[in-house]
Amino acid sequence: MPPLSPLAVPFPELPALPGVRLAAGTAGIRYQNRPDLVLVELSPGTTIAGVLTRNRCPGAPVDWCRSALRSGRSRALVVNSGNANVFTGRAGRTAVEATATAASHLIGCPAPQVFLASTGVIGEALPHERLTAALPTLYANLSESGWEAAARAIMTTDTFPKAATRTATIGGSEVRLSGIAKGSGMIAPDMATLLAFVFTDAKLPAPLLRRLLAAGTAQSFNTITVDSDTSTSDTLLLFATGQTRHPRVPPIGGPILADFRRALFAVLSDLAIAVARDGEGAEKLITIDVSGAVSARSARRIALAIANSPLVKTAIAGADANWGRIVMAVGKAGEPADRDRLSIAIGGVWVARAGSVVSDYDEAPVVQHMRGHEVTIAVDLGLGDGSARVFTCDLTHGYIDINGSYRS
Amino acid sequence: MPPLSPLAVPFPELPALPGVRLAAGTAGIRYQNRPDLVLVELSPGTTIAGVLTRNRCPGAPVDWCRSALRSGRSRALVVNSGNANVFTGRAGRTAVEATATAASHLIGCPAPQVFLASTGVIGEALPHERLTAALPTLYANLSESGWEAAARAIMTTDTFPKAATRTATIGGSEVRLSGIAKGSGMIAPDMATLLAFVFTDAKLPAPLLRRLLAAGTAQSFNTITVDSDTSTSDTLLLFATGQTRHPRVPPIGGPILADFRRALFAVLSDLAIAVARDGEGAEKLITIDVSGAVSARSARRIALAIANSPLVKTAIAGADANWGRIVMAVGKAGEPADRDRLSIAIGGVWVARAGSVVSDYDEAPVVQHMRGHEVTIAVDLGLGDGSARVFTCDLTHGYIDINGSYRS
Repeated sequence: MPPLSPLAVPFPELPALPGVRLAAGTAGIRYQNRPDLVLVELSPGTTIAGVLTRNRCPGAPVDWCRSALRSGRSRALVVNSGNANVFTGRAGRTAVEATATAASHLIGCPAPQVFLASTGVIGEALPHERLTAALPTLYANLSESGWEAAARAIMTTDTFPKAATRTATIGGSEVRLSGIAKGSGMIAPDMATLLAFVFTDAKLPAPLLRRLLAAGTAQSFNTITVDSDTSTSDTLLLFATGQTRHPRVPPIGGPILADFRRALFAVLSDLAIAVARDGEGAEKLITIDVSGAVSARSARRIALAIANSPLVKTAIAGADANWGRIVMAVGKAGEPADRDRLSIAIGGVWVARAGSVVSDYDEAPVVQHMRGHEVTIAVDLGLGDGSARVFTCDLTHGYIDINGSYRS
Repeated sequence: MPPLSPLAVPFPELPALPGVRLAAGTAGIRYQNRPDLVLVELSPGTTIAGVLTRNRCPGAPVDWCRSALRSGRSRALVVNSGNANVFTGRAGRTAVEATATAASHLIGCPAPQVFLASTGVIGEALPHERLTAALPTLYANLSESGWEAAARAIMTTDTFPKAATRTATIGGSEVRLSGIAKGSGMIAPDMATLLAFVFTDAKLPAPLLRRLLAAGTAQSFNTITVDSDTSTSDTLLLFATGQTRHPRVPPIGGPILADFRRALFAVLSDLAIAVARDGEGAEKLITIDVSGAVSARSARRIALAIANSPLVKTAIAGADANWGRIVMAVGKAGEPADRDRLSIAIGGVWVARAGSVVSDYDEAPVVQHMRGHEVTIAVDLGLGDGSARVFTCDLTHGYIDINGSYRS
């Protein structure tokens, strides 16, 4: 196991959420002696929305969810770690159907209302008999307080469990949103690049959930990148149990949902940043703000070019204020940029302005900032009003250690 | 200095090339006690073509060359290592003009016939007085045998000097092509991503040289990637001195140039692969062949997605036959791909066919292959006739060592 990330944050206290019961257990899919299976039961009437990977070679569970999402209804979620059930051909489809069927019998619901996610090694058949054999024990252990155990059981190379919670009011009534996530490598936007499951006791129709989730994803999971590699298993699901009474929300949403939207975006953002904090080998969380681009889209592309540049990431790992590499990354993005208008700040200190180093540049405070655990980079292109923020982490020996021997 | 790459190849013997004299010397620009400056004199009548970086923040020498290439004529080349003269504003332009002027006085030619290239740290002013002060000594030392000294003086993080040579016949007369190159980090196609200078004693008009060089670049420097980072200084120049007599080549080229074209492409390809071999921290040269894509362009994008994937590159560093990461990289490229038609081979052994692992898969010979210094990956998409080949290297602790402290 890799050591705990120096950027780890404590697991928050997650109160019971009406309509959600969870259990974790040990199916022995790949890991020995650690929980690797989660079952979540949702109360009748639960609605669901999801965002799935855009990778063209998705896993069988992603195919399953894409189809199951059409109904907008869910009664259960089954997640395993250790095996991603990706590139497993017919065996993968068989495993998915067997798992959903087994869970549907326990819960008492149609199989398509069981949602599935798998994470771990690619290309090996998922031993689904072990998984279905373990499910009855998990079903017997379902509880309203199983959050941390669930967050731990879905981890792979993660070094700490990830969760977030918020309350919001809808027409004066308080509802809660709580989520768990995993992910630390194979992380790049487009989209979620990880597994994340968010639950609320609010009562919201599935089409409205979909719109909220799409907007929230753009501002959260689609702003993080660890290694530019987009997973085949990325799954983000949002469940609404409707178990807490509040004034009815109209199908179009509107102002009554303003506070709920804020809380949802905060939960999604917390989870996304937790993933960047746990990037494989990460020792520094890097926030990149690009402004002055010709459009928001252009700003985002430039921010991602910086965030994904191995030369930028290794320089930050070494606390080397090598801002020339930021110039390189801006230029390689292929977006409109004028070298002679470009300004760059690190840790709030302007290093270069309008195309050359500032005349009284003092590197000492910049290096001091870079030695810390949170590094900020700001780039102003001086061309327009487009801006974007992206989160990433540094590229260290730890990343090589973890990924040069993942399967051994 | 990083240790010699285990993939290093010996420096070839480069005979004199009529019309080319070279010298290397020590200007003390950044490095101490090593040559860091090269002067090349070309005979009167030399024609030139070039390919320059597409990075939007190019260095001042790139701007200079782009303008100077219009005339198609050259009498001199000045190259320094240690400082890239990039993002240096007005000071950068001043340095370029001063250097070209100084060389033009020594050679006796117009300043725009002096070509310039700089490589090294970005964002610091080039101390051009040191450079121009050293030029007269280099001029006095010009010789027809200065090839290896020149190839060494342009190195930065390179661990071995790079050169290639071939002969070709044009209408029965033998001509020669010789080239030197440097580059080991900040290497990605679009385009050359390094410095490379190729010389021939053939007599060829500049427009014809341009067409030959564009075609050759597509098949050589644009097929290599080390870290996906595109340099601000990439410069590839092809000089033809016309000092050896051969039948006149018509402006359109044609069959009389077939052998010359072959030899040129071979020199360019040798130099490009030498750069991939010297990728920062590289311990393995990786050849990626993609076939069965919907087009050559699509195949190339998929090959580059594999080549640039940190997860693929670290798995190969660890001799881990984790072909699932190749599936992931194919899928993330965004190009047409059908998971259930995909086949993958490593070291000539088919690991997966038509969407799942082969039934009798034996990992032992694959791991044996991956422990060697040259790793081959073949991907067949099963969709069409598009194919592409790309070269890269693995991602190792050495890359982090080199790039976490480049400037220290």
